[in-house]
Amino acid sequence: MMPSKKRPFKKISIIGLGLIGSSIALAIKKKKLAEITSGYSRSLKTRTIAKKLKLTSEIKNNISDCVKNSDLVIICTHLSSYKSIFKKISPHLNKDAIVTDVGSAKESSISEVESLIKKKINFVPAHPIAGTEKSGPKAGFAELFEERWCIITPLKGNKTRDINKVKTFWKKLGSKVETMTPSRHDKVMAVTSHLPHLIAYNMVHTAADLENFTKSDIVKYSASGFRDFTRIASSDPTMWRDVILANREAVLEMIGRFSEDLSAIQKSIRWEDGDSLYKLFSKTRIVREKIIKAGQDTSDADFGRSKRK
Amino acid sequence: MMPSKKRPFKKISIIGLGLIGSSIALAIKKKKLAEITSGYSRSLKTRTIAKKLKLTSEIKNNISDCVKNSDLVIICTHLSSYKSIFKKISPHLNKDAIVTDVGSAKESSISEVESLIKKKINFVPAHPIAGTEKSGPKAGFAELFEERWCIITPLKGNKTRDINKVKTFWKKLGSKVETMTPSRHDKVMAVTSHLPHLIAYNMVHTAADLENFTKSDIVKYSASGFRDFTRIASSDPTMWRDVILANREAVLEMIGRFSEDLSAIQKSIRWEDGDSLYKLFSKTRIVREKIIKAGQDTSDADFGRSKRK
Repeated sequence: MMPSKKRPFKKISIIGLGLIGSSIALAIKKKKLAEITSGYSRSLKTRTIAKKLKLTSEIKNNISDCVKNSDLVIICTHLSSYKSIFKKISPHLNKDAIVTDVGSAKESSISEVESLIKKKINFVPAHPIAGTEKSGPKAGFAELFEERWCIITPLKGNKTRDINKVKTFWKKLGSKVETMTPSRHDKVMAVTSHLPHLIAYNMVHTAADLENFTKSDIVKYSASGFRDFTRIASSDPTMWRDVILANREAVLEMIGRFSEDLSAIQKSIRWEDGDSLYKLFSKTRIVREKIIKAGQDTSDADFGRSKRK
Repeated sequence: MMPSKKRPFKKISIIGLGLIGSSIALAIKKKKLAEITSGYSRSLKTRTIAKKLKLTSEIKNNISDCVKNSDLVIICTHLSSYKSIFKKISPHLNKDAIVTDVGSAKESSISEVESLIKKKINFVPAHPIAGTEKSGPKAGFAELFEERWCIITPLKGNKTRDINKVKTFWKKLGSKVETMTPSRHDKVMAVTSHLPHLIAYNMVHTAADLENFTKSDIVKYSASGFRDFTRIASSDPTMWRDVILANREAVLEMIGRFSEDLSAIQKSIRWEDGDSLYKLFSKTRIVREKIIKAGQDTSDADFGRSKRK
C-alpha cells in the first residue's frame, strides 16, 4: 500500500486477526483509511495466513513492534487476553495513540484493564454488532460492517476528540454509530445476543445428547426447525466462553427470565391451555415484522437460504 | 387444465389452501400429476385468492363437492379440524379413494379420527418436512418439497398399494420419502421441530417482555443473534398451537430435558466454570458441520442472507 497524505490515519494496528480483525483489515484497505496497517496474532498459523491474504501492509511477530507509532490500535482478540495485551502494549504506545476494541461485553473487561489504563492509555471501547458463525482470518470480508450498528461506550476520561475519531472510523467502515454506557450496552446485549447464543448452544446440546434416537435422524430432519439453532451454536467457542463469563450477572438474570417464561409455557401445554399458547405465538410474530421493517433482517422466506440442496 | 390419460391421478382434492396446500397445488400443476385438481378452504378470502392464483383447476365452496370422485384427497388444514373434516368427507369418498395429510404430529391426530376411519377410509398419514415461516395461499411455491424429506406413517389397515401410491406422489413432487411409525415420528419431530419452535417462541417472548429497555433497542440490535429466533417464532400460531398440543407428552419430555441442560449451564456460569462452557460450545459446532454435510442447510455464512440492508 503506497503512503498517501489524505488518509485519515497514519498507522492502524490490528491485534488479533480472526473474523473481526481480518474484516476490519480488509475494510481499511478497501476504504483507504490508513497509510500503513500493521497486524499481529499470537498464532503463527494465523500470521502466515494473514500474510498470504495480504490483510495488512505488514504482519509483525511481536505485539510491541505492531503497535509502535500507531495512531489507532484496534484490539480484536478474545476478552480473556485483554489484561495481558494492555500490559504488553502500554510501554510502546504513542502519547496520543487511541486504543479501541471490538469486544461483545464491556463493563467487566473495562474494569479489568482500568488500573493499567489510568491516564496513560486513551482507551475508547467499541463494539461492532456484526459477525457470522465463521471464525479465523479467512472468514473476514470488507463489507461485514456495512449498514450494521457499532456501539461506542466512552469512558469518563475519554477526550471528545478521541471519541469522535473512533466514531468517524466506524462510519467510514459503513457502520451506523450509537453511543451508550458500558452498563447499558451489556444489558441490551444480554437480551439481544448473549441469551440467544446461549439458548442456541443449549438447544443443540439437548438434541445432540438424545441417545434414544440415532444422531443421524436429528441431522436428517434438521430442516424442520432445529438447523436454525445450529448456525449460531457453531460460533467461536472461546469467544463465547469469554463473553458469557464477562457479562455473567446480566446473562444469569436473563436465563432466569427465560426459564420462568418457559415454565409458564410448560404449564399451558400440560393443562392444554390452547388460548394462552395461541396468544403467545401470535405476539411473537409482530416482533419479526418490526425487525424486517427496521432493516435488521431479510423478509425473504427461510432467510432466503441460497439453495435447498 | 386439459384432461390427459397419462397423468398418475384422475382427480386430486386439496382441503386447506395455506402454505402447504397451495404449494402442493402448484407442484401438482407443474409436474402434471392429475387430470383435475379441486381445492377447498373454509375461508371465502382464501378461496378467492386461490381462484385468482389458479392454484387448482376448480375451487369448491363446499367440502363434499371438492372430494367427490377423487382418487386422492390431501388434508392440509390445522390438526384441530381433522375430526370435523373426516366426518364431513366420509360419506362422499369413493371406495378406493386414498386420504392423506401433511400434519406435523401423528399419534394423537390419528387416534382422534380412528373411530371415523374404521375400514371405510383409506387414510395414509404423511408429513412433508418442508415449510417456511410464511403462511396463507400466497406463500406457496411449487419447489417447496424438492429434495426435502417426506415421512409416511402407515396405519395397520393400510393397503400396500395405497402406501406406495402416496410414496410415489411425494417422490414425483421431488421429495425423498421415509417410512416410520406415528410414535417414532412424533418423538423425532419433538426434538428436531417442536422443541426448537417452542424455544424460539419463548426466546422472542422473553425479549419482547423486557420493559426496562425500549423494545426498539431489541429490534435495533437484533442482528447480534436474536433475529434468528424471530423467523421461526413468526410461523403460523394456529398451526403451532395445534401441533404442540397434539404432541403434548413428547414435547413436555423435551422441555424437561432442555431445562435440565439449561440449569447445568446456569450453574457453570454462576461458578465461572469456563472449561465446561468451552467444552459445550465446541461440541455443538460439530452438529452444524454434520447438517451441512448432509445437505440439510447451506454452508454460506449467515444462511447466505441475501442482502445486509
